[in-house]
Amino acid sequence: MDYRQYFVNALERLRGEARYRSFARIERRAGAFPYATWHCPDGPREIVVWCSNDYLGMGQHPDVVQAMVETAAATGVGAGGTRNISGTSRAVVELEAELADLHGKEAALVFTSGYVSNETGIATIARLMPGCVVLSDALNHNSMIEGVRRSGAEKLIFRHNDLAHLEELLRGIAPERPKLIVFESVYSMDGDIAPIGAICDLAERYGAMTYLDEVHAVGMYGPRGGGIAERDGVMGRVDVIEGTLAKAFGVLGGYVAASAEIVDAIRGYAPGFIFTTALPPPVAAAATASVRHLKRSAAERLAQARQVASTKTALAAAGIPVLPGDTHIVPVTVGDAALCKTASDRLLERHGIYIQPINFPTVPRGTERLRITPTPCHDDRLVGELTRALVEVWTALGLPLRHRAQAAE
Amino acid sequence: MDYRQYFVNALERLRGEARYRSFARIERRAGAFPYATWHCPDGPREIVVWCSNDYLGMGQHPDVVQAMVETAAATGVGAGGTRNISGTSRAVVELEAELADLHGKEAALVFTSGYVSNETGIATIARLMPGCVVLSDALNHNSMIEGVRRSGAEKLIFRHNDLAHLEELLRGIAPERPKLIVFESVYSMDGDIAPIGAICDLAERYGAMTYLDEVHAVGMYGPRGGGIAERDGVMGRVDVIEGTLAKAFGVLGGYVAASAEIVDAIRGYAPGFIFTTALPPPVAAAATASVRHLKRSAAERLAQARQVASTKTALAAAGIPVLPGDTHIVPVTVGDAALCKTASDRLLERHGIYIQPINFPTVPRGTERLRITPTPCHDDRLVGELTRALVEVWTALGLPLRHRAQAAE
Ligand SMILES: Cc1ncc(COP(=O)(O)O)c(C=O)c1O
Ligand SMILES: Cc1ncc(COP(=O)(O)O)c(C=O)c1O
Repeated sequence: MDYRQYFVNALERLRGEARYRSFARIERRAGAFPYATWHCPDGPREIVVWCSNDYLGMGQHPDVVQAMVETAAATGVGAGGTRNISGTSRAVVELEAELADLHGKEAALVFTSGYVSNETGIATIARLMPGCVVLSDALNHNSMIEGVRRSGAEKLIFRHNDLAHLEELLRGIAPERPKLIVFESVYSMDGDIAPIGAICDLAERYGAMTYLDEVHAVGMYGPRGGGIAERDGVMGRVDVIEGTLAKAFGVLGGYVAASAEIVDAIRGYAPGFIFTTALPPPVAAAATASVRHLKRSAAERLAQARQVASTKTALAAAGIPVLPGDTHIVPVTVGDAALCKTASDRLLERHGIYIQPINFPTVPRGTERLRITPTPCHDDRLVGELTRALVEVWTALGLPLRHRAQAAE
Repeated sequence: MDYRQYFVNALERLRGEARYRSFARIERRAGAFPYATWHCPDGPREIVVWCSNDYLGMGQHPDVVQAMVETAAATGVGAGGTRNISGTSRAVVELEAELADLHGKEAALVFTSGYVSNETGIATIARLMPGCVVLSDALNHNSMIEGVRRSGAEKLIFRHNDLAHLEELLRGIAPERPKLIVFESVYSMDGDIAPIGAICDLAERYGAMTYLDEVHAVGMYGPRGGGIAERDGVMGRVDVIEGTLAKAFGVLGGYVAASAEIVDAIRGYAPGFIFTTALPPPVAAAATASVRHLKRSAAERLAQARQVASTKTALAAAGIPVLPGDTHIVPVTVGDAALCKTASDRLLERHGIYIQPINFPTVPRGTERLRITPTPCHDDRLVGELTRALVEVWTALGLPLRHRAQAAE
């Protein structure tokens, strides 16, 4: 058997579709964000990161860094075991209390990532309800799709954010069957927002449970950073809220928040929770510091909203094809995998601006894009530099710029 | 629909089988391991942890703590994105080089946990080989079982460490079909060891690929801590070696090490790698420091072996029913879920000794046990205290002690 050939062929398929990914080696510097060091073949170079999911720069916040440093010095760096086998640290227990409070739920449970919380959380919930039908938004994240798959439950996909289609599907399910609606609040590649309240209306009308991924919203929306559900005043109507500690909170880990029974059942049945080492105390303590800070402080959210607006305005005025949307995510369409990669390379090499190309399978083919995420740390000077650099790249690659009139539409 | 009832019932099922788990809240203290603080209802109490998977106490090693502290201060606490979207830090790249070197492989790839590396690694490898049959040891860990399940490949289970059965199954598979043998080196609940070389012989004879989980061996066996395959001189014959950074290395994260093509293909196709935030630089740097230290230093391995031997001798001499085995894991059989929990509670409350009960689903019903893991930090005085405490508990609960003659067998 020539096993090597299977993997060589798999890599050739990626290259043939311009989907082979090279990862730029980036070294972040606390206190300097969004500046970072790019370790390129010619040696280290200073660049500006414009595509970070550390959306508010909390990964370098002094309180957050201090919490990690102090806890590492006090307790050591690891958890020492699974949650059951000596891994339930005080730091993790405190973090769970903080997250339950953030979402106004009775309890919360922490996982090693948002990916794992979705995958094992959704699978476990659906499995505990025999005969369950899962209704899943067409653009749900891979971690949710895998969770549904793993549950073995029947799955119905509703068109993205399409209430009429969701209702049509709900109406077709026998009333006595358990139903779980699985969706996101902010969809991270397009930057659009789900109508959470209206989905809860349907859930109530047809007797369905709701599971909401707020991964790209927690920390950034709502008076205390509880997400879009908090902003819209509907947190109490959503049964399960899932989030990450690795994006706006700037650290690592994921969680679900829900009623005491739901959380306790996931705790007792979810393999992705039971059979893995717990989050280290320094990581949990850093996350707690970040969540606490963003509960009290709106300054980061306000500054982010301001810089997002000024970026969108500047790019649109220059004719760069920004996808419309009401969130902190600023997608710029290229529409071709190879061109998208070339644009990203040119931005980095000529302009010292790092924006990773987003290609299939992260987005559908033909919708390849640059995904820009302005943070409170991207000031107006940086916005100006970004705009000029994008115009240079668009012109050099012959990509279409919008006319001013179109841009103003 | 009364959704609450599904979860209430699920919890009652756990309680009915004495499988409901309460997690003790433990606060580790750097420099004091294996001592820790137990946050019990009456307030904090000093205890001795005897069931940690921080097998060598590396979680508190000064170099490891310092690496986390310095990197957190220098780069901040988080990765800022997936590996592709701005999350490939220099620290992670260095860690991967260190791990490839540890196992004598061309490349390595880091995941957020050993659980995820198995689940998405096995699933991806098997999927890239159409028509693949997976041969899986009957006692494989849940993360490997889930990986096989997710691959959708045909699965054949061979009896635990049974070469004749494995050969019988291999012989029955058409020669042209790809075959993947999936197994562990040290089985963590019984503490026994797979015949890796003999399994590689069969793999060569029948043209199969091999995937070996060394999670409970890396850092502890072999001249540089490369695991049982290194100790046995067969690393080069195993195609894929998987490990964790969260047990003997004391931190968090998992990895696979293999040929450049296999690693690159997993990197390009594995959803559990692609769609999740990368390991934070401080976590990666701490892991690198730990791996580097244990490559050079055998002191921890020698001290662990000595204290394991003295624990086994002391317990056997006192008539405590230790399962035989040649590893650092010292399982003591109870054989009943409720008694196992009571024994653990009594050890903690009366003796300040923390050993979590291991019940179903982690081990088969009827084999419930206390799983003791002596580390270099458990000195002879602690071994004596443990022995006396176990005898007290065994006597109080009416559990059978072995006669001296039996114990000496
Ligand atoms: C919608 C969504 N859910 C979950 C995740 C996974 O979160 P984490 O990075 O914490 O694994 C992501 C992205 O990473 C995501 O975009
Ligand atoms: C054999 C085996 N593989 C993998 C894992 C998972 O490793 P991690 O704790 O890093 O997720 C474990 C236990 O946790 C294990 O026992």
